[in-house]
Amino acid sequence: MKYQIKDYLRHHGFVDQTLTVQGWVRTKRESKNVNFIALNDGSTINNLQVVAEAGVIPEDILKLVTTGAAIAATGILVDSQGAGQTVELKVTSIEVYGTADPDAYPLQPKRHSLEFLREIAHLRPRTNTFSAVFRVRHALAFAVHKFFSDNGFFYWNSPIITGSDAEGAGEMFRVSTLDPKNPPLNEDGSINYKEDFFGKETNLTVSGQLEGELAALALGKIYTFGPTFRAENSNTTRHLAEFWMIEPEMAFFDLYDNMDLAEDFVQYVIKYALDNCVEDLAFLEKRLLEEEKNKPQNERSPMPLLEKLQFVIDNDFERLTYTQAIEILLQSKPHKEKKFQYPVEWGIDLQSEHERYLVEKHFKKPVILTHYPRAIKAFYMKQEVDRPEDKGPTVRAMDVLFPGIGEMIGGSQREDNLEKLVARMKEVGIEPESMDWFLDTRRFGSAPHSGFGLGFERLIQFVTGMGNIRDVIPFPRYPKSAEF
Amino acid sequence: MKYQIKDYLRHHGFVDQTLTVQGWVRTKRESKNVNFIALNDGSTINNLQVVAEAGVIPEDILKLVTTGAAIAATGILVDSQGAGQTVELKVTSIEVYGTADPDAYPLQPKRHSLEFLREIAHLRPRTNTFSAVFRVRHALAFAVHKFFSDNGFFYWNSPIITGSDAEGAGEMFRVSTLDPKNPPLNEDGSINYKEDFFGKETNLTVSGQLEGELAALALGKIYTFGPTFRAENSNTTRHLAEFWMIEPEMAFFDLYDNMDLAEDFVQYVIKYALDNCVEDLAFLEKRLLEEEKNKPQNERSPMPLLEKLQFVIDNDFERLTYTQAIEILLQSKPHKEKKFQYPVEWGIDLQSEHERYLVEKHFKKPVILTHYPRAIKAFYMKQEVDRPEDKGPTVRAMDVLFPGIGEMIGGSQREDNLEKLVARMKEVGIEPESMDWFLDTRRFGSAPHSGFGLGFERLIQFVTGMGNIRDVIPFPRYPKSAEF
Repeated sequence: MKYQIKDYLRHHGFVDQTLTVQGWVRTKRESKNVNFIALNDGSTINNLQVVAEAGVIPEDILKLVTTGAAIAATGILVDSQGAGQTVELKVTSIEVYGTADPDAYPLQPKRHSLEFLREIAHLRPRTNTFSAVFRVRHALAFAVHKFFSDNGFFYWNSPIITGSDAEGAGEMFRVSTLDPKNPPLNEDGSINYKEDFFGKETNLTVSGQLEGELAALALGKIYTFGPTFRAENSNTTRHLAEFWMIEPEMAFFDLYDNMDLAEDFVQYVIKYALDNCVEDLAFLEKRLLEEEKNKPQNERSPMPLLEKLQFVIDNDFERLTYTQAIEILLQSKPHKEKKFQYPVEWGIDLQSEHERYLVEKHFKKPVILTHYPRAIKAFYMKQEVDRPEDKGPTVRAMDVLFPGIGEMIGGSQREDNLEKLVARMKEVGIEPESMDWFLDTRRFGSAPHSGFGLGFERLIQFVTGMGNIRDVIPFPRYPKSAEF
Repeated sequence: MKYQIKDYLRHHGFVDQTLTVQGWVRTKRESKNVNFIALNDGSTINNLQVVAEAGVIPEDILKLVTTGAAIAATGILVDSQGAGQTVELKVTSIEVYGTADPDAYPLQPKRHSLEFLREIAHLRPRTNTFSAVFRVRHALAFAVHKFFSDNGFFYWNSPIITGSDAEGAGEMFRVSTLDPKNPPLNEDGSINYKEDFFGKETNLTVSGQLEGELAALALGKIYTFGPTFRAENSNTTRHLAEFWMIEPEMAFFDLYDNMDLAEDFVQYVIKYALDNCVEDLAFLEKRLLEEEKNKPQNERSPMPLLEKLQFVIDNDFERLTYTQAIEILLQSKPHKEKKFQYPVEWGIDLQSEHERYLVEKHFKKPVILTHYPRAIKAFYMKQEVDRPEDKGPTVRAMDVLFPGIGEMIGGSQREDNLEKLVARMKEVGIEPESMDWFLDTRRFGSAPHSGFGLGFERLIQFVTGMGNIRDVIPFPRYPKSAEF
């Protein structure tokens, strides 16, 4: 494979060799009859300094070498005289592949707002910030696959288009090829989906979990990592209509095995990013400090980015039950001073303000909450036996809460008892017949099993320090926006 | 991480230890007052033999230990007396997690047809064949990520829901949240997509290439690996409505770099599967031999599966131009004897019969065809200069053809010249304005670049020897079928 700028900067063996280096011009500046060109090829946050001494490169070529232009620079790699880089390329010739008219090219060497860059999402990977974010995104994705593969999990592709309409995890997008204006109708006036492509009504998946469960009950340990969709009208910095989910599912794992796995997993992928992307992360740390300069002290990150990541790796997550969390909240200053917007009592769905208090104020570290009230959790979670310490029926659920992010992971041991599962489905209004295939996994060879889901973009937000989820995915989809 | 059956079978260090092994019963047979239970936990094609000596396990427990039941068996791992396994578990107790009533459980220890198993796709991963296929699928997926990551490519997620309607690669599925029966209309009677979720008409992507190109022109080398969709009414053993595509895209790569990459890539992932899944592949080789026993000689695979895979790794792919391929076809026996259904002349789109002749009869190995006529290829392929050896205008396209599969990879150097690209778009009826964001990549910092696409399921078909593409993806989507 051809060498790239990251190789030239890293390995001293290229010094004194004649090379041709291809990339895009980040900046050009003239100084004492010498032109310094900062060249970047996307392989690293660092630029290669290309030095064109006076008269070496014809003026008509040199004037095309502007920010954004693609060039090939041929010359000798030498030890650098200047500060800030170890080597530089003393050029003898430059070929310009593609120019970038300074009057028209939107990415000039100045500060652009993230909002502006979101409007030109097709060009923003060419900036330092977004190239760093997307390199970190890659490293985290690879770490996900490596962690699971190394630990005996099999990658599993749950379907994207689903004919199953009973998952109940959120609003869905309809997938169809029927004539949108004049769909075929049944005699009773309803739409005749038998004539649709799949012969039935179909939607985009909201979760690959249920199909993942049946895979775990065959292959032992599996994980999904694919796109999922929510047609919810959420215009927040934490929600996307299209996002990537990681959903491991494990036969013979109980809730405690599940917690151990979730903690090991998150720590592994963060450590992988630190080990492999330290330059990008250092750049993103500086960016965040810069961004937060103008914020009041209490809105700034409590730790610099790299320190925060190291802290998560080095410290065990705090584990407690929902009931214990409610106790802490009831004893808390904001509750006593009536500073919480939402009331605190056993049975409530914890609000963001409560989670933030626990994670950011009380424990100051990631927290795993378990044993939530049955009434506020999904039908497929394993019903806990009655325990004197709980205030009501609970399920073997676990949520992993992260500072600044909130819920990073939601999981549970799954209900493996057919009768209990069917009874719970009926209670929440799901027709068991509609999910007969799912129930077959409990009818035949049912076994204790557990799993969780992690929103990949929230993980990237945490690792990169980017405040808006729309800035950690190449082309964010949200209400009224599906550009490119 | 907890040990699994593959660990117990592989590492002799567990012998004489007391273990609890969890899994599903494949078979149980009685012999001379001893029960032999073949236990499988999905981690390997091989079963652990569990030996229950007479009287050790109570009869009421033992009678629940039937094919498909989930159990935990506790006992001592000992060197095996019998042939076919190295160790076995001498049990002292068995816990039954979940039964599988032999009268109701569809997967009994007998031969089931692939067609029957497709109808119970939620249970088929519990069979030897499908567990092997899905473990190989995992290994290939991981090899894809490892190859690209090791070689400096970044994983890139092109959007799944796309507002871009000009890609022209096939029929698309519409994604909408509008009321399907009474969609809002404009004054002219057309549907008012401004009121749809994304404020415009949106579809499922048919290819991530165009968004991949802009990423390559920023990050250097990227690859996508995600689901793509075609709403085509194809009921064949090679087509799915939902399938996974791998699409690398590389700045500064010409057609020849692209060919080298494609060949290295395919050989790497096949070698990875051989290195990591030899037991599964040996099982699948036997399955295929069995399946082909009843076929006439000329319809059987020319080589056993493992030998075929090794052959692809050991031999360079044949490279020739489309024009040279046409010459060979014109000289061929089937052409002269008028055995081809479709006529052969320069300019035709090669038919399956032509590709198969070249690959399976003439060269007997994978073939890379380049320089196809411009008229039969996509608008974004780089226009070749006029060359005397061609019979007309060509593009720098490349198709990689595989025995038994046909087109495995389609790729090209991309047209990087703005004027030529725009002219070609107009020729084929695409409004350049509709893809202005794509053209920006040629307007600013354009550079030579190349890429290709590989249908993941076709690769899995080739590696596993499975004849129907519906059998290498967990839940196949095709016309009139979106079950589970």
